[in-house]
Amino acid sequence: MDKIKVSIIGATGYVGAELIKGFVSHPSFVLTDLVSRSFAGKAFSDVYPVFRGVCDILLSDKTPEEVAKDSDLVITALPHGVSSQQVPVLLNAGTRVIDHSGDFRYKDLATYEKSYKLTHPCPELLKEAVYGLPEFYREQLKTARLVANPGCYPTCSLIALAPFLSSGLIDRNNIIIDAVSGVSGAGRKADLAYAFCETDEAFKPYGVVGHRHTTEISEQCSFLAGLDSGDIKVTFTPHLAPFKRGMLATIYVRPSAEFNDVSTQKICDVYNEYYKDEAFVRTLPCGSLPDVKAVAGSNYIEVSGAYDEETGMIKLFSAQDNLGKGAAYQAIQSANVMFGLDEGLGLYTMVRGV
Amino acid sequence: MDKIKVSIIGATGYVGAELIKGFVSHPSFVLTDLVSRSFAGKAFSDVYPVFRGVCDILLSDKTPEEVAKDSDLVITALPHGVSSQQVPVLLNAGTRVIDHSGDFRYKDLATYEKSYKLTHPCPELLKEAVYGLPEFYREQLKTARLVANPGCYPTCSLIALAPFLSSGLIDRNNIIIDAVSGVSGAGRKADLAYAFCETDEAFKPYGVVGHRHTTEISEQCSFLAGLDSGDIKVTFTPHLAPFKRGMLATIYVRPSAEFNDVSTQKICDVYNEYYKDEAFVRTLPCGSLPDVKAVAGSNYIEVSGAYDEETGMIKLFSAQDNLGKGAAYQAIQSANVMFGLDEGLGLYTMVRGV
Amino acid sequence: MDKIKVSIIGATGYVGAELIKGFVSHPSFVLTDLVSRSFAGKAFSDVYPVFRGVCDILLSDKTPEEVAKDSDLVITALPHGVSSQQVPVLLNAGTRVIDHSGDFRYKDLATYEKSYKLTHPCPELLKEAVYGLPEFYREQLKTARLVANPGCYPTCSLIALAPFLSSGLIDRNNIIIDAVSGVSGAGRKADLAYAFCETDEAFKPYGVVGHRHTTEISEQCSFLAGLDSGDIKVTFTPHLAPFKRGMLATIYVRPSAEFNDVSTQKICDVYNEYYKDEAFVRTLPCGSLPDVKAVAGSNYIEVSGAYDEETGMIKLFSAQDNLGKGAAYQAIQSANVMFGLDEGLGLYTMVRGV
Amino acid sequence: MDKIKVSIIGATGYVGAELIKGFVSHPSFVLTDLVSRSFAGKAFSDVYPVFRGVCDILLSDKTPEEVAKDSDLVITALPHGVSSQQVPVLLNAGTRVIDHSGDFRYKDLATYEKSYKLTHPCPELLKEAVYGLPEFYREQLKTARLVANPGCYPTCSLIALAPFLSSGLIDRNNIIIDAVSGVSGAGRKADLAYAFCETDEAFKPYGVVGHRHTTEISEQCSFLAGLDSGDIKVTFTPHLAPFKRGMLATIYVRPSAEFNDVSTQKICDVYNEYYKDEAFVRTLPCGSLPDVKAVAGSNYIEVSGAYDEETGMIKLFSAQDNLGKGAAYQAIQSANVMFGLDEGLGLYTMVRGV
Repeated sequence: MDKIKVSIIGATGYVGAELIKGFVSHPSFVLTDLVSRSFAGKAFSDVYPVFRGVCDILLSDKTPEEVAKDSDLVITALPHGVSSQQVPVLLNAGTRVIDHSGDFRYKDLATYEKSYKLTHPCPELLKEAVYGLPEFYREQLKTARLVANPGCYPTCSLIALAPFLSSGLIDRNNIIIDAVSGVSGAGRKADLAYAFCETDEAFKPYGVVGHRHTTEISEQCSFLAGLDSGDIKVTFTPHLAPFKRGMLATIYVRPSAEFNDVSTQKICDVYNEYYKDEAFVRTLPCGSLPDVKAVAGSNYIEVSGAYDEETGMIKLFSAQDNLGKGAAYQAIQSANVMFGLDEGLGLYTMVRGV
Repeated sequence: MDKIKVSIIGATGYVGAELIKGFVSHPSFVLTDLVSRSFAGKAFSDVYPVFRGVCDILLSDKTPEEVAKDSDLVITALPHGVSSQQVPVLLNAGTRVIDHSGDFRYKDLATYEKSYKLTHPCPELLKEAVYGLPEFYREQLKTARLVANPGCYPTCSLIALAPFLSSGLIDRNNIIIDAVSGVSGAGRKADLAYAFCETDEAFKPYGVVGHRHTTEISEQCSFLAGLDSGDIKVTFTPHLAPFKRGMLATIYVRPSAEFNDVSTQKICDVYNEYYKDEAFVRTLPCGSLPDVKAVAGSNYIEVSGAYDEETGMIKLFSAQDNLGKGAAYQAIQSANVMFGLDEGLGLYTMVRGV
Repeated sequence: MDKIKVSIIGATGYVGAELIKGFVSHPSFVLTDLVSRSFAGKAFSDVYPVFRGVCDILLSDKTPEEVAKDSDLVITALPHGVSSQQVPVLLNAGTRVIDHSGDFRYKDLATYEKSYKLTHPCPELLKEAVYGLPEFYREQLKTARLVANPGCYPTCSLIALAPFLSSGLIDRNNIIIDAVSGVSGAGRKADLAYAFCETDEAFKPYGVVGHRHTTEISEQCSFLAGLDSGDIKVTFTPHLAPFKRGMLATIYVRPSAEFNDVSTQKICDVYNEYYKDEAFVRTLPCGSLPDVKAVAGSNYIEVSGAYDEETGMIKLFSAQDNLGKGAAYQAIQSANVMFGLDEGLGLYTMVRGV
Repeated sequence: MDKIKVSIIGATGYVGAELIKGFVSHPSFVLTDLVSRSFAGKAFSDVYPVFRGVCDILLSDKTPEEVAKDSDLVITALPHGVSSQQVPVLLNAGTRVIDHSGDFRYKDLATYEKSYKLTHPCPELLKEAVYGLPEFYREQLKTARLVANPGCYPTCSLIALAPFLSSGLIDRNNIIIDAVSGVSGAGRKADLAYAFCETDEAFKPYGVVGHRHTTEISEQCSFLAGLDSGDIKVTFTPHLAPFKRGMLATIYVRPSAEFNDVSTQKICDVYNEYYKDEAFVRTLPCGSLPDVKAVAGSNYIEVSGAYDEETGMIKLFSAQDNLGKGAAYQAIQSANVMFGLDEGLGLYTMVRGV
């Protein structure tokens, strides 16, 4: 069978690099065009020497039309506002698209425009776009023309919350998500704030009110609970930690009246049941807790929970690689679904090891 | 004036080392005995080469009686259960004591015994012991014979919460403390869990239900609110992050009915007013957020807050050095108070720099 | 075609874990027995949670005979002195073996016994054992019954030196190897020296005289130069750096009289010519220098060189992953050769990415 | 006694910050002007939040004349080429100066101009300037008007080599210095090369031919050996390691004919004798080796050595803080000497601790 041709626009950011890492070893996809405005003309491996001999494809500055022509799938890893310009062109040219920006993640236009402080140039695509979390939208992904790859914090939060939201076991008006990201989440750029000497031995909150992922999480929580966009509003606080890759969410919720005899064991049971058929969601043995170390470099996400009898609070925990399940590898998982492949092809054994 | 003679029992743990760092440059104290069962006979600088030429005092295995004889102040940095054996001996021998364990931090005996799974050998001392947080117990420290140096998580949490607890501005039944510690919090020991290869590029929660500091925080919160031990129960979750020193708490509370027109600015105003005379509590400019980097290596603690209008949640933030304000330097601050010195002597300019 | 059955004795050290990472995604090998005396009865993924769902094989305490019975290849990752006990048993039982210890790396018995301070129980195997550096001993590996996987420092040093030793372009009596290893080189163990708080923000030399790898490098240098064991003696200094994985060697040599018009370009030419057919040796563009970051997590090794006209010194540089090309992945490369497979099968696209 | 007024031009780089850290706790100096073109008008603590409440002096853009007017000492932490413009103005205005650039470190004009690719605007000052290594130029510092603070690599190298150069115990034509610096050596700037994600888990050589510090080391080696500038040429290779602060040099030399019965013990004896009166040079117990960890955050420098009998090579080791003894704290040590103070005032107890 011919390989599926996949191109990447915005290939030299960290997400682009991880997409390339995933596809060079994928048995069913072949990389076609790698577009980078900043580095066009150079080999990809000149920008990322780790890929010398592994991916030496020349970076181009092809237009979206040109890229679409020779691609079965185009993955855009572009800033918001730029994606919404290029994606319609790609779709019109007849290719399928997975987009990594926030531009197509929302169903509610007003929420997007308020969160991103932009007027959306093609709001009609919001309805069509499928939110690329295969665990929840697998069926829609199969035929999707446009997939909006979820944000890293939303993926981490939603995987942890979904079993409880969909079952009504928790109070939906009292969801607190405290999350931590590695530095790669800030992207590949020259910025003093992310310099080694400023970031190592540091730890801090940021964007503590109004971080864009807050509304993305809230809208998807509403949908998972069977409600309308805007019905659930979560409290969300991101932090920056001195590791390259990884993300951990600690979530505080209260059991609803329907959660009888809540206990740590029952929380684990809910996870085990809900995710029993999911290859990439590791429901940890009861009492074990997620660790960024165990998932960095992979598409796996770990979840676990605990019940604090003293205060009646449920704590949910999830850990993933912010560039992996939180971005590039999740896109590959979706791409597998879109093209009718085994959903984990090329992803099952991709782990960091030591 | 003769210098005040201070001895340390348990000198070779990380807290001991930081006490020594503080006292070698202190103008009014002189180190007398350094006791270490494990390394008796060696020079302190053989155990900590960073102190070569700075503190070459021979470590001894003197008994508490012997140490007390020649000391105006003894600081014990011993495991709980061991402190409660040695402290009464030291007090009986006529010296004053600052203890770093959990053994004398509680007023309520049952809470201590449940939290530490020990029978207290000298419960009568619980009443006498002063909780060594100078910002709240300054007057009592001046004449204290026995000071219980607070835990690191409790210090970080209580400094952030006190202004709101004492004023009744927050709902006392709904306090969530999400906190992160550097690896030095685990102490100086050979333990695979804290090996470089296991800890670097890792991040995880631990002790998520029943961590001992939970009850310590809860009791002190109750007192700060003018209530009795046990009246307030907080939800507390510690995490381990890959940096050596530092601690950050992100705290979620809801305003009480008494907090009119709550806003980020008003939260900052409360901090500014409450801590306006405190040298070591940095109330950050409104909108700025604490960073572990800014306080590691010092006795400073930073606080700030934000109000999330969407969810009505107040977020409080605090950062300190877990070994500094969270342990050794706070003990030095208390020692200054106990002996009538300027409270910040030897501490004001102790900062990390780059 | 049936997969080749490979077993690992000593599966839970860091080398074992990387072997397993390599084999779980290898198309031609299947893991059979994983032996661990310490963790027998547990799943491998209980010891390394990163492998949950990826390798959940139960660890056993099978004897070498039992393991050999069901394996086409056994890889031993055991301490020296232990390997030399188990390897003969494995060979007698009819399996082929790749051993990771120093026990079979030497041709000269006396050098081994002096370096390791042991009497060798089966010196006759030294002659048969093939030194598992495919770039130099490819032909012998094809039929080898016993392969001695090289040390990490030797691999890094020899790949850099070989083109110059074999051609006589450098003074063989004046070879200085200054090398740096990541912390994983010390193995997986509870040891205060490798605790995060002792290793982070640290850097130091160790074993500066008489490190065992010195004699291993010296003997192989002699062979590469067409001389006898003992003819070349190198100066070697290892250092420990605060990163998990990786190794870099900076080597100082002087050109011999035969090296006409020595220049940086000529040094690069020598590398390019010598390694032009090698898949895993990256001869960098002239002027580029190796970086641990570019090879960690892979089987690639980078080399480059420079000529210092002011002092007439040649500097050679090489970087590899100490656990990859320096240990586990090199063993997989050798295994591929031993079983007639494409030498890079399962290894080409194994890179870290970001 | 009135305090000595010290001002800093270029106050917001990492060297400036460490100078300020040193002076805020110094008993005899008081900070007057802090000049920063980039941040004039802001408080120093706005740029370095770690100094909140410790040094809130407003940064200014005063001219050198204005600064000189009110300062007994001005320390310039400026790029080379800029220092040589401002220093003559400062001297003419009657103040004393310690300069951190390379502009006044050389005695030989041609060597400076070749190394820095600049024409020197005031070469007459090269003769007057005192090389600010108190261990070697203490007498000259006492009356110096202009002090050229040494480079970090030169300080680390020269302290290790001096006892052997001055005594003629080593072959002066064969000195190899392999050195490693922490990331702060690259300065405080937005540069992708020093971003956390590019630097962590990385290690590489750089500037392997023609690094400017090579000629500075070579000239000072010549002087220490009683020779003329240019007589000794060293081989020097710097590397970048993933820690913030610190520097280690591993130096390879051969004993001269005058070094009878060379041994590790004799090497240590040479160090002990040569540095027996130096407060900041730690001559380690024979067999112990320097570690960056032991000196980071301090003005101490550690030295040790070993003799490799197999190859006849002497290895010398030294470790210091690149920003401490390698830059800012050494300047404070020189300032103490210049103003007739105890040479270690404010520096003895400045150590990192844990």
